[in-house]
Amino acid sequence: MTRQQLIDQIRQKKTYLCVGLDTDITKIPRHLLSSADPVFEFNKQIIDATKNYCVSYKINTAFYEALGVKGWEAMEKTVNYIPSTHFKIADAKRGDIGNTSSQYAKAFFETLNFDAITVAPYMGSDSVLPFLEYPSKWTILLGLTSNPGAKDFELQKSGDEYLYEKVLTTALQWGSPENLMFVVGATQGNWFEKIRQLVPHHFYLVPGVGTQGGSLKEISEKAMNKDVGLLVNVSRAIIFSSDSLDFANQAAITARHYQTELAKYLQ
Amino acid sequence: MTRQQLIDQIRQKKTYLCVGLDTDITKIPRHLLSSADPVFEFNKQIIDATKNYCVSYKINTAFYEALGVKGWEAMEKTVNYIPSTHFKIADAKRGDIGNTSSQYAKAFFETLNFDAITVAPYMGSDSVLPFLEYPSKWTILLGLTSNPGAKDFELQKSGDEYLYEKVLTTALQWGSPENLMFVVGATQGNWFEKIRQLVPHHFYLVPGVGTQGGSLKEISEKAMNKDVGLLVNVSRAIIFSSDSLDFANQAAITARHYQTELAKYLQ
Repeated sequence: MTRQQLIDQIRQKKTYLCVGLDTDITKIPRHLLSSADPVFEFNKQIIDATKNYCVSYKINTAFYEALGVKGWEAMEKTVNYIPSTHFKIADAKRGDIGNTSSQYAKAFFETLNFDAITVAPYMGSDSVLPFLEYPSKWTILLGLTSNPGAKDFELQKSGDEYLYEKVLTTALQWGSPENLMFVVGATQGNWFEKIRQLVPHHFYLVPGVGTQGGSLKEISEKAMNKDVGLLVNVSRAIIFSSDSLDFANQAAITARHYQTELAKYLQ
Repeated sequence: MTRQQLIDQIRQKKTYLCVGLDTDITKIPRHLLSSADPVFEFNKQIIDATKNYCVSYKINTAFYEALGVKGWEAMEKTVNYIPSTHFKIADAKRGDIGNTSSQYAKAFFETLNFDAITVAPYMGSDSVLPFLEYPSKWTILLGLTSNPGAKDFELQKSGDEYLYEKVLTTALQWGSPENLMFVVGATQGNWFEKIRQLVPHHFYLVPGVGTQGGSLKEISEKAMNKDVGLLVNVSRAIIFSSDSLDFANQAAITARHYQTELAKYLQ
């Protein structure tokens, strides 16, 4: 999916919500556990119920890998089920030496048909570039993450700047707003304006709204650019809205609630 | 596997070699491609041929993920095939917010029976601690890696120290020599002595020997401690020694060559 196609979807549907499919098998409604593939069955119903309120789905690979081969099968079926109108993100936090990153890129961009993958920056340029080489695919590099551990290294000074700033400004030389996004956690409200100055044109993937407590209003007011430039991810707070028979409908109600709020900020 | 068990294996077999199963299906001997699971068949023959010369196998998850569900199956079969005398490393470079890292730990320590996993430090404490919480399992944190991109962030100053030093010294508070190792690239010869001063007791996993050009002699002379404290990984240079019918025997000859050299440094 191109940048313009993503922006068009956001404008048409009045939403920049990404629904995170962190499908923990211990949290899905119990009546699904008797189906042949409970994780896929859950995802399928969640996707059907929420697709009008979001422009993207993010699959958190950890929850699938925890189930082994069956989990990888559920991931494959899920990514194939997501409509082509939606931006498909593998939240995989990969990154290794060049020849290995090339294999990860192949895994998520060829073998599985994701549009984007999250990548960890620690190992530097040759660990990231193999992902950026794929035409019309996206790399979403970790910038400033939403978790408490962000203070350990990301928020340590590296010369005159923080490490996360060094990562952002260095990576601007590796990719363009057409193939590179950054992860900026919604819990990092104090930094949004500064980050938007450093990286004015790129999209951000913003986790940390919902269960982690980040503010939708704050990120939208401080970090939106003229092309919107934001994908706000909500995972658990939407998909686990209810564990009843009616779970998908409840998830739709929550997703619609987020979409209604986001639509206001788009005006 | 405990630290003492690993040291005992090293002393008994006079080797601290780890064989890296970076099993690229495009590089394995063509006669294997007609078998039901070519990647597992290749690994099985490589393991049988090399197990007397090494104390550890390292599975690079990227090469398996590139094949999708079939690759994950081959990984599962391979880890189950590795003898219990050998230290089993998932070279997976994972790391995410706490509840997600817990799922990765489950994937590699419970669903798959690895002894250790490589973890990326960028996201800080809560992205690493879930791996360290598993009894008799190991976290191998990226310190200073072997690739050219190491200069982009790892070798940038963070206050008075380099980022990689900050990572090492911070992580010393998270784990002990009984459950924490560090990745130190063999191509980073200039830094070995300094790193051994900072981290005297922990084991290092040392990639970058072989195809990447690092010196076995240099790392052994500069970074060995009284408990050896080194696992030297060689992947491509051993497993792709030959693509003939005789490939496993050729791999054994190369592995034995490395073992013979390592045995000298152990004296």
